[in-house]
Amino acid sequence: MTGVPKRRYAVLAEGRLRDPNAKTAHGLIRYGEDEIVAVIDSTLAGQRVLEAMPELRRDAPIVATVEEALAYGPTSILVGLAPPGGRLPEDWLQTLRTAADAGIEIVSGLHQRLAPLFPGAKVWDVREPPDDVPLFSGEGLAVESKVALTVGTSSAIGKMTATLEIQRAASKAGVSARFVPTGQTGVVIAGWGICVDAVVSDFVAGAAEQLVLRAAETSPDLVLVEGQGALGHPAYSGVTVGLLHGSCPDCLVLCADASEERIMGLVPRPSPARIALLYEQTAALVKQAPVVAVSVNTKGLEDDVAGEFLARVADETGLPTTDPLRHTATPILKAILEA
Amino acid sequence: MTGVPKRRYAVLAEGRLRDPNAKTAHGLIRYGEDEIVAVIDSTLAGQRVLEAMPELRRDAPIVATVEEALAYGPTSILVGLAPPGGRLPEDWLQTLRTAADAGIEIVSGLHQRLAPLFPGAKVWDVREPPDDVPLFSGEGLAVESKVALTVGTSSAIGKMTATLEIQRAASKAGVSARFVPTGQTGVVIAGWGICVDAVVSDFVAGAAEQLVLRAAETSPDLVLVEGQGALGHPAYSGVTVGLLHGSCPDCLVLCADASEERIMGLVPRPSPARIALLYEQTAALVKQAPVVAVSVNTKGLEDDVAGEFLARVADETGLPTTDPLRHTATPILKAILEA
Repeated sequence: MTGVPKRRYAVLAEGRLRDPNAKTAHGLIRYGEDEIVAVIDSTLAGQRVLEAMPELRRDAPIVATVEEALAYGPTSILVGLAPPGGRLPEDWLQTLRTAADAGIEIVSGLHQRLAPLFPGAKVWDVREPPDDVPLFSGEGLAVESKVALTVGTSSAIGKMTATLEIQRAASKAGVSARFVPTGQTGVVIAGWGICVDAVVSDFVAGAAEQLVLRAAETSPDLVLVEGQGALGHPAYSGVTVGLLHGSCPDCLVLCADASEERIMGLVPRPSPARIALLYEQTAALVKQAPVVAVSVNTKGLEDDVAGEFLARVADETGLPTTDPLRHTATPILKAILEA
Repeated sequence: MTGVPKRRYAVLAEGRLRDPNAKTAHGLIRYGEDEIVAVIDSTLAGQRVLEAMPELRRDAPIVATVEEALAYGPTSILVGLAPPGGRLPEDWLQTLRTAADAGIEIVSGLHQRLAPLFPGAKVWDVREPPDDVPLFSGEGLAVESKVALTVGTSSAIGKMTATLEIQRAASKAGVSARFVPTGQTGVVIAGWGICVDAVVSDFVAGAAEQLVLRAAETSPDLVLVEGQGALGHPAYSGVTVGLLHGSCPDCLVLCADASEERIMGLVPRPSPARIALLYEQTAALVKQAPVVAVSVNTKGLEDDVAGEFLARVADETGLPTTDPLRHTATPILKAILEA
């Protein structure tokens, strides 16, 4: 599928393995197929990942230094979280330089490209788009696998997680399903893909189409496309719609949560029912794609509150509604297969 | 407004001044505030622009060679049309080199950047976005001027022309109105702006917002934003929605034509009424922006056919409907002012 040799990762998460913003580290540990040989976080050194963060579902030793991590024989070191303030602090640079000097590949999903900082080293800047992304051609409309795209009531709401949990449910059910990564964590997890928000805007739909075509090469039953942004997110709605049209989905899975925060502190979150209709109408300008299920992120809610919220969304939308992490993605998978 | 000294243009349109694809040449001649000292098209040399193309509404001599054009004292030479096949032919390169050697600025809206081809020369690659475009911040929501954005049933349907004709009608009516250019021809015409389709997708809304903030600096009555693409255009809908949310419009002007061609040969054109509603609903996720008028491009239609089509669109949408070129943009201006 990817042509990329399997990596053995050391994951750099210094001081912040438990920080919810260490999204890329968490994603790779929980969902990546590549091996994790060690996690670097001196504040948790000596513990194992499953002790420190059982929800990551995969174990590895936690070590204090890059030198210790190197003893585990990694091929690659992942910059597992965004640095405070956006620029790499000097001690991270030092850590990465030590790894690079040992011939280890640096893998980074940061906005700031690292290749220029480490001349001669192997660096995979995950956000760097390929330079040959074509315009949307329409070829994606003829893909034979069933294509499902996750969309959201807001951004950062669990679209990637939902997509990967649906793939997991498919795998358990013997359904072949390819995950199509469109953001930095997804790309690190899968080892291929394009960060569509880093692509020149004219080419976002073309990038999405190419990714789906590539995923469909092996004729899987399902192609599961990780969505980005949200139709109602003023900063990212363009990326969302580029994906919505470019990936030519057959159906959509709406991702929601119980938060009532305004998007960017500026605009109200649309209700799941309202935004589902608008996603469908927008998709239908190019190709019909009904919303077939709602994936709700109930993280942090008590069981009864979560249950009530799920019931409310199910009632409001009339759709199969579940939290794929708290419960299972199987109802969503079923809805996709029946669409 | 722009801080850019006024240019005196020689317009390169060799062999194709009358070609409808010479959009940038036509736009600059018809709408630009900069002076046009000469047009280069050896097939029409000796005529004047108003003889060869009266619809351009501005006169200039047509000459056969760049050397003749230089005698008119231009500051700049515009590459006025896209080259066949996308790459500059050798004779155009030679022409531009002659101009550059004479100290003339090269202005180009081509995808291919020309600066690297003419090291040491003054080159304005209009499509090259600034490297400091910020993310959307929400500041655009507080702009006090009334902001109107043109949107379309398809792309290449006359959004820029409609926007400029509304500005012209405003100027005649004593209403101060700033044109906000978002595509290469608009940027050449206005001498400032950003080609939003060349911006990294994450920053399209931010680019649109910055342009509106800049246009609003002088507190005009109206800020008229040139739209791009179309919500129903599978390749460009992302750019369209980025602009729709990023420019924070107070109202929308829908641009339509009588064509029944499928978009990209792939998807049916939505009716004006259907797409108007969808633009409103999408805009309203961030800020209410009703469609207040329809600008119809009836180019090439007989008077009676054009009249019937205008009447049909007016009836279907219930909105003021006019062709600003065949008739006048005044009804659209009025609808914007009353919105």
